[in-house]
Amino acid sequence: MERQKKYFTAGPAELYPKFEEYLREFTDKQLGSISHRSGEFKKIYQHADEQLRTLLNIPEENAIMFTGSASEIWEKSLQSLVEFESFHLVNGSFSEKYYQYAQSLQKQATALQKPLSEGFTYGEIRVPEYAELVCITQNETSTGVQMREADIHKLKRSHSAKLFSVDVVSSAPIPVLDCKLLDSVFFSVQKNFGMPAGLGVWIANEKCLDKALQLKEKGVCIGAHHDLPTLWKNARQFQNPSTPNVLGIFLLGRIAEDMNRTGIENIRKTNAVNAKKLYSFFENRPGFSVSVKDPELRSKTVAVFNTEMPSGTLISRLKEKNLVIGSGYGPGKDSQIRISNFISNSPENIAELLYEFEKI
Amino acid sequence: MERQKKYFTAGPAELYPKFEEYLREFTDKQLGSISHRSGEFKKIYQHADEQLRTLLNIPEENAIMFTGSASEIWEKSLQSLVEFESFHLVNGSFSEKYYQYAQSLQKQATALQKPLSEGFTYGEIRVPEYAELVCITQNETSTGVQMREADIHKLKRSHSAKLFSVDVVSSAPIPVLDCKLLDSVFFSVQKNFGMPAGLGVWIANEKCLDKALQLKEKGVCIGAHHDLPTLWKNARQFQNPSTPNVLGIFLLGRIAEDMNRTGIENIRKTNAVNAKKLYSFFENRPGFSVSVKDPELRSKTVAVFNTEMPSGTLISRLKEKNLVIGSGYGPGKDSQIRISNFISNSPENIAELLYEFEKI
Repeated sequence: MERQKKYFTAGPAELYPKFEEYLREFTDKQLGSISHRSGEFKKIYQHADEQLRTLLNIPEENAIMFTGSASEIWEKSLQSLVEFESFHLVNGSFSEKYYQYAQSLQKQATALQKPLSEGFTYGEIRVPEYAELVCITQNETSTGVQMREADIHKLKRSHSAKLFSVDVVSSAPIPVLDCKLLDSVFFSVQKNFGMPAGLGVWIANEKCLDKALQLKEKGVCIGAHHDLPTLWKNARQFQNPSTPNVLGIFLLGRIAEDMNRTGIENIRKTNAVNAKKLYSFFENRPGFSVSVKDPELRSKTVAVFNTEMPSGTLISRLKEKNLVIGSGYGPGKDSQIRISNFISNSPENIAELLYEFEKI
Repeated sequence: MERQKKYFTAGPAELYPKFEEYLREFTDKQLGSISHRSGEFKKIYQHADEQLRTLLNIPEENAIMFTGSASEIWEKSLQSLVEFESFHLVNGSFSEKYYQYAQSLQKQATALQKPLSEGFTYGEIRVPEYAELVCITQNETSTGVQMREADIHKLKRSHSAKLFSVDVVSSAPIPVLDCKLLDSVFFSVQKNFGMPAGLGVWIANEKCLDKALQLKEKGVCIGAHHDLPTLWKNARQFQNPSTPNVLGIFLLGRIAEDMNRTGIENIRKTNAVNAKKLYSFFENRPGFSVSVKDPELRSKTVAVFNTEMPSGTLISRLKEKNLVIGSGYGPGKDSQIRISNFISNSPENIAELLYEFEKI
């Protein structure tokens, strides 16, 4: 059946073009019934692990672990990596939530806060002396603000004794992040990977494991479900402590494999071309403006634009053409639109979308 | 494509007969791309909610909440419902894990422990005076031991001030549990509901909510992700705090609807007939015996048998016929087999399996 609608939403999003092919493979092979302790499952996990290592250049040392969502990793990373104090860069709803999770877990959490639509550069960030974990939302899905990879790397290098946890929920695998340098990196699959929601992916290094084990030794509660040491031990054997989303892990492996066939460099090039097209279109269009002023801080995957026409009107008009875009988030709901530039949004689809905008 | 293998494993298990039909509906309607904040998603949640209420006779007062797995609910129920002390009935790997989760969360956990293959009856259980939560694994998947519904209900009635949390991971919707009486009931979908893994379902009443709010008020840490008050508040609007497994919720709604069309009474009758057939077959078969001696404590959904022939040999021989059964769990790995009697294991399939056993 022909997919009628094209989604340009920030996630759940347009599904990966070969999604249905891989889903059929899953059902034909009856993989929904296999034991998660079987060799067959371990091969599925291993395949996803290997393809992600290639795609994201993840060193052998790091573990790749699966949870129910990226939000769950907010909690698990704070429990396993912070005894007393975490530090957060907050400039939108999702970085705010990571910060709130730390407060709910009764950590001493501090934040450098910026207004919506603004972002962070290396020079302006003072990391508190006693912060054990620095939490960065590389791509703030709510406002379309990114933090540059180079700035994240510089910040980590100048605070090498602290652990860094980087949320790339809606940008991976586009940012060129150094997983050898960054301790904890995580994302979810319903964004740029074009999958149905229900799986979080957590990449962590041995420093994270050591910290979690230290906390445990000290008697700090690091949780009971999906704590880092238990996830790690299982991941090393291509297993999960509890029954995981086998379908999600299978699809992720297949999709990452397909991305590797295309080549991450080609994927990033296409992404950059599309992003340039999107931003320059709205920059030059009467009635619109780009929400993020600094071009360097504009997200490559979730573009946010101010609109004079109410966002609801635009969304409805495009819906008639089977094109689905998102409204702004929170206070920007009516005055902004959000458009995804994910891997499943092909250059042709973006062109079609902009063509329809021209007609409005 | 014809499914070649028939699974009689304790989960992940044989998929629901109409699974592929519902999966196709999901992909045809592009539901993998819809926003989890949209009205369309809320309708999917509401539909699952309504069908589960009918199927399991859940009162309006209770909330139905979704997590990534039932194991996650072990953690969340202990965090939200226990300040100091929990009490556990332990007679196998999964009841043991619920107990261990309580210890990891630094609760004062006590347990009444029984050897594997044995179970609990009302009269022998002394609930500690200060236990706030009584944790019962109604169906111990590892050993095929059940606790009778009447005994659970009596125990709750005689300790009405304490909260009861009942794990029906591998038995729901077969047990006739009184959700008006029992405070917290939960299950996962890759067992009797015949779905791919990746979704936990938590049914809780207002006493649970009150307890969680009290703990929060007192400054007890109840976690940050999927804590009961946040799940509850969202569930009341047919939402989830973070992006949930939309596919899982959709499939669960459709499958519960189909079960309601068959009628839960009919489903339970078929289950009872199949169970009787299974147990009496192996009771009378040389070289086999039923693991659980007391017929009243034999699981209706996961039957465990002692075998003189190594379980591995039996499993291989049946595999040649495309019939998949499970080995025993833990110490019973070689000397026991486990056979599911789930809703997706039709009477014809069970008959075919027993026919092949006769030939061995």
